Amino acid sequence: MSLGLFAQMAGHHVAGWRHPDAQAGGENLELIQHVARTAERGTFDLFFLADGLTSSAEAHPSTVARLEPLTLLASLAMVTSRIGLAATASTTYGEPFHTARVFASLDHISHGRAAWNAVTTSYARSAANFTRGEHPAHDERYAIAEEYIDVVRGLWDSFDDGAVIKDKEANVYVDPARLHTLDHKGRYFSVKGPLNVSRPPQGHPVVIQAGSSEPGQELAARTADIVFTAQQTIEEGRAFYESVKGRMAKYGRDPRHLHIMPGVCPVIGRTEEEARALYAKLQGWIDPAAALALLSDRLGHDVSRFPLDEPLPDLPESDQLRSRAKLLTDLARRENLTLRDLYYLVAGARGHRIVWGTPEQIADALEEWFTGGAADGFNIMPPFFPGQFDDFVDLVVPVVRKRGLFRESYEGTTLRDHLGLPRPASRYARARAAE
Amino acid sequence: MSLGLFAQMAGHHVAGWRHPDAQAGGENLELIQHVARTAERGTFDLFFLADGLTSSAEAHPSTVARLEPLTLLASLAMVTSRIGLAATASTTYGEPFHTARVFASLDHISHGRAAWNAVTTSYARSAANFTRGEHPAHDERYAIAEEYIDVVRGLWDSFDDGAVIKDKEANVYVDPARLHTLDHKGRYFSVKGPLNVSRPPQGHPVVIQAGSSEPGQELAARTADIVFTAQQTIEEGRAFYESVKGRMAKYGRDPRHLHIMPGVCPVIGRTEEEARALYAKLQGWIDPAAALALLSDRLGHDVSRFPLDEPLPDLPESDQLRSRAKLLTDLARRENLTLRDLYYLVAGARGHRIVWGTPEQIADALEEWFTGGAADGFNIMPPFFPGQFDDFVDLVVPVVRKRGLFRESYEGTTLRDHLGLPRPASRYARARAAE
Repeated sequence: MSLGLFAQMAGHHVAGWRHPDAQAGGENLELIQHVARTAERGTFDLFFLADGLTSSAEAHPSTVARLEPLTLLASLAMVTSRIGLAATASTTYGEPFHTARVFASLDHISHGRAAWNAVTTSYARSAANFTRGEHPAHDERYAIAEEYIDVVRGLWDSFDDGAVIKDKEANVYVDPARLHTLDHKGRYFSVKGPLNVSRPPQGHPVVIQAGSSEPGQELAARTADIVFTAQQTIEEGRAFYESVKGRMAKYGRDPRHLHIMPGVCPVIGRTEEEARALYAKLQGWIDPAAALALLSDRLGHDVSRFPLDEPLPDLPESDQLRSRAKLLTDLARRENLTLRDLYYLVAGARGHRIVWGTPEQIADALEEWFTGGAADGFNIMPPFFPGQFDDFVDLVVPVVRKRGLFRESYEGTTLRDHLGLPRPASRYARARAAE
Repeated sequence: MSLGLFAQMAGHHVAGWRHPDAQAGGENLELIQHVARTAERGTFDLFFLADGLTSSAEAHPSTVARLEPLTLLASLAMVTSRIGLAATASTTYGEPFHTARVFASLDHISHGRAAWNAVTTSYARSAANFTRGEHPAHDERYAIAEEYIDVVRGLWDSFDDGAVIKDKEANVYVDPARLHTLDHKGRYFSVKGPLNVSRPPQGHPVVIQAGSSEPGQELAARTADIVFTAQQTIEEGRAFYESVKGRMAKYGRDPRHLHIMPGVCPVIGRTEEEARALYAKLQGWIDPAAALALLSDRLGHDVSRFPLDEPLPDLPESDQLRSRAKLLTDLARRENLTLRDLYYLVAGARGHRIVWGTPEQIADALEEWFTGGAADGFNIMPPFFPGQFDDFVDLVVPVVRKRGLFRESYEGTTLRDHLGLPRPASRYARARAAE
């Protein structure tokens, strides 16, 4: 089982920061370092930073103000030594050359622990921060992402391994025969290359994707190493798992080389009663207006004018958030949820699965999905920090270890080692091998 | 006197990496950490990373492959505690929102030590890595830069100091009255804001500029905290110093709040003879073809077809590199240099001043400019690492300290403290004060 810590530093639960023991803050470096070290103590595969490109007073507290992911992870690379370091970066509001550089650089700085969560940026309001009139439509964002990821991978191959030879006698710093110009000319990008960073220690940093739509699944099957997803039931989870893994054969990929890791928000108590009380307390702290705004955000439609205690009304399809809105709508239909039920659920875990209980019960919930063909691992989303995550590492991790589901210690040094992923050969090495 | 270390990690001298004691490498994290710690031991104001957006086998060894500046500095923030951390980032191939974020984030991570060297990117070949057909012309690049810097400064003011109040009882994470939307709509950029990072510890990270042209000087006088420049003679240095400082009054600025810091490449020996021999050795290692390519690069014209031992021919003005090409051309005319003289000079220090001698002689060279009204400090460009920079800190710094020209220890904790620069009030605080 692979485990990631999804680090929403004011807590994943919208009201988690209000807990008396919570230390909120996406800019609280001391807290973040404590959490990263705790995750490493728990032999987690990765420390995973979400990201977004907007702020407002109404936003989820974890997103209002936070350190920029790449600079933060580079600093964390200095206070950890084994755990993978994953950051979200947009394919809609970035430049492939910059993205390739920063993740290659992070991979060097961390000695092979970098991962890029490539997202297409759901929220149309991001466009206003980037001199763009229009946020591209959903399918176009995926077409851009596909080309973007190919360019980034191409740039990562610019230098063959060992190309920087530094031969003082012969006055050759880099071997020109081992430095490659990409010369990419595509529909959305023209990028000549080469990159000005040598090949990353992992060959390519690990690539994560989070899309659940048709194009999102297809992109993941073709290019991702990890899929970060959100399902509520094991049936849904299994269907998604099979759907994505089933698409891999046509790209010549081994299904074991893609880890499907749904998000889980564990609310942990020493006893079932304690966990139930904590969960009730967190839900009770939710501000209805803010929760309704969050739900509207996730659905891509303002639902504040609908009656709260009736089922979710039919909504036109949202182009912005197609897959996430669909997951929520399906859930509401299946479980016959009212708008109020749904906003409590979203505010609690932003559409991810919430499990509450004793450490044994949390471990059961993870084991069920892992052994039941619905997940290769999980992104753990603590409702608040540091207490609930300390508890996960101190109380839940020992249980999953005892059951033989999770490592006792790190065996390798890179994130690819932890995940059992091969180091990819460069496209030029593959071409030479094929000759 | 303020001192910066200009960290071209294969050495500033094009052949410096060939010295038997040189440890080359823009990706050699251990070496870079050693150098940053050494600069801090020498109570330098800042550790300054150059940057570029291209690579090739023919490029200066320091630019072929190197870690990306922001990730590198964030990691160095963890192994240093006082020294300022400056990175170069382009206003031509970046987004103001991203730039504002990463420098604000670095300022938080380093507790107030970040600086942004805003450059317009001289080299037209950069365009090919960013899906741009054309590199903008010189004056347009400066018009873009001017607006870009204003947007970045505006975004840094998004949050008032203390706006993130985290009031658990009242359920107020951020005080909406202290979060500001920039709503910038200009000629080149439309950026709504607010930024998703709270106000940096320094208010605004320190802003550095390097342009010497008319628009470059004007921009510096209006917006920069530091000017990084390249003059060869004290007369030139003094004229530049007076020209830039003289422009500040019309922007209501105190001339002491802008540090003019030319680059200096010190070649240090225990004796004058040792220094001379080292300099001769370095110059002797220069590969003429590579040096000529570098010179062509700096002039913006291919000069390889001209006779080497005749004066520099008349060249049409280069739009790409106006100010740097002009500095070189003026130098060649004034000193009656041949093409060969000039390429040795450029290969040696890329157009910056080279001083060689004993520690006392190096200190004399710095003192002359500092007390002679040509500089507020210097960017030190060691010909290679680590030896020549260790020598600077161990041998030259004690001399300038003994002469009372340079601090014995850090007095403050932020880069603004080191430079004696006030913490800027936010534009909203200024507006309130003016009411």
